Amino acid sequence: MLDSAAYPQSLQRLIGWLCRLPGIGRRTAERLALALLEWPAEDLAHFGEQVARLRQDVKTCTICGNFSDTDECVICRNPRRQTDMVCVVETAAQIPVFERSGGYHGLYHVLGGRISPLHGKGPDDLAIPSLRQRLQAGTIRELILATNSDVEGEATAAFLASELAAPGLSITRLAAGVPVGADLSYADAATLASALGGRRAMR
Amino acid sequence: MLDSAAYPQSLQRLIGWLCRLPGIGRRTAERLALALLEWPAEDLAHFGEQVARLRQDVKTCTICGNFSDTDECVICRNPRRQTDMVCVVETAAQIPVFERSGGYHGLYHVLGGRISPLHGKGPDDLAIPSLRQRLQAGTIRELILATNSDVEGEATAAFLASELAAPGLSITRLAAGVPVGADLSYADAATLASALGGRRAMR
Repeated sequence: MLDSAAYPQSLQRLIGWLCRLPGIGRRTAERLALALLEWPAEDLAHFGEQVARLRQDVKTCTICGNFSDTDECVICRNPRRQTDMVCVVETAAQIPVFERSGGYHGLYHVLGGRISPLHGKGPDDLAIPSLRQRLQAGTIRELILATNSDVEGEATAAFLASELAAPGLSITRLAAGVPVGADLSYADAATLASALGGRRAMR
Repeated sequence: MLDSAAYPQSLQRLIGWLCRLPGIGRRTAERLALALLEWPAEDLAHFGEQVARLRQDVKTCTICGNFSDTDECVICRNPRRQTDMVCVVETAAQIPVFERSGGYHGLYHVLGGRISPLHGKGPDDLAIPSLRQRLQAGTIRELILATNSDVEGEATAAFLASELAAPGLSITRLAAGVPVGADLSYADAATLASALGGRRAMR
C-alpha cells in the first residue's frame, strides 16, 4: 500500500508545502501536518493568514533595507544607536545575529546579496547607491563590511572598500574568529562578539 | 538589545505560531520564518490558504473515522481490502503507520482516543456505537484492538474485548514487539509488521 493512499489530498498538499521548508523532511512534515489538524480552526485561520500575508506585512526599511513593519525600521528609528557606524550585511536575516551578539550598537545597511558572477549578480544588483548616499551625509565615520567570509563575500568587501574609500572614513572587516567559508547566519553570539571586537582596518 | 527589537511584529507573530508546532524551538521557528520570507508571494498565499482551510478540507470518514477528502475514505472505498478484518486504533494519525508497515490489508476503526478517567474520557466519548453497528452487519470475523500498549490503552482494549465479544468473532491484540509504554504513532515499520504477524487472541 502506497503512502499516497493513506492521507487525503488536502493533507498531502499541506505535507508537500511543509517539505519545502529547510530542514523539514517527509516524516517531520507529516508529524507537523497531523499536529496542525489538532489545532482549533480559528488558530489555523490566523496562522494561515499570517503566512499568506507575510510578504505584504513585512516591509523593507527605506534607509537600511532591514525587515520592518513601517517605512523605517526599529534600529534606524532608535535615537540611542551610534549613527557614525554602519555595518554592511548581505541579507536582512543576518541583522538579528548581530543584535543578539550584544557587541554592536551602530546602524546597518543591507546589500541584498553579494557580487556573484556565477549567479549573474553584479554590483548594480546590490544596494550600493543608497549606501553611497548615506555616506555623503558625512556623519558616518566607520563602515564595517560584514559580508560572509567566503570567496564571493571577500571579493564583495574588497570591491566596496575600493569603491567607497573616502577621507575620514574608516573601512573595517570583521576580525578572525568567524570560520572561513561559513555563513554568518549561523554564527554563534560569542564568536560574533569577539569578531566584532577585533575587526581590522582594510586599507 | 533584545531579540524583540530585531524582528518586525508580523514576523514575530509568525515565529510565535511556528513555535507552537511539536519539535520546533525558537531558533528553528526563526529559521523557518526567514525561509518563508524568501518564498514567492503566490506560494505563501497557497500555503497559508491550505493551513487556514485544513479543518474544513480534511473530513472524517463516516464509516471508520479516518481522515478523508470525501464522505468515505480511500481505504473503506478500496474493493481490494479484506472486509472481514477491522483494526481498531486510537487516532486516525496511526492509520498511515499501519499502512506503511505493509502487513495489514483489512479495514480500520478510529476510536477517537482511549478510556482515560484522568482526562475525563469514558467509553461514551469513543466511537464504540458505530463499531458495534459495523460488527452487527456480520461480515467482520476479526477485530484487532490496536490501542497503545500503555496502561490506558490496555484497559481500553480489555473493555472493548469484553463489550464486543460475540460468537464467531475473534478479538486480537498486537503481538509483543511493540515496546511497552510507547506511542504507536512512532513505531517503525518493521517492528509493527512483526507485531501484526504475531498478534495473540485476547479471549
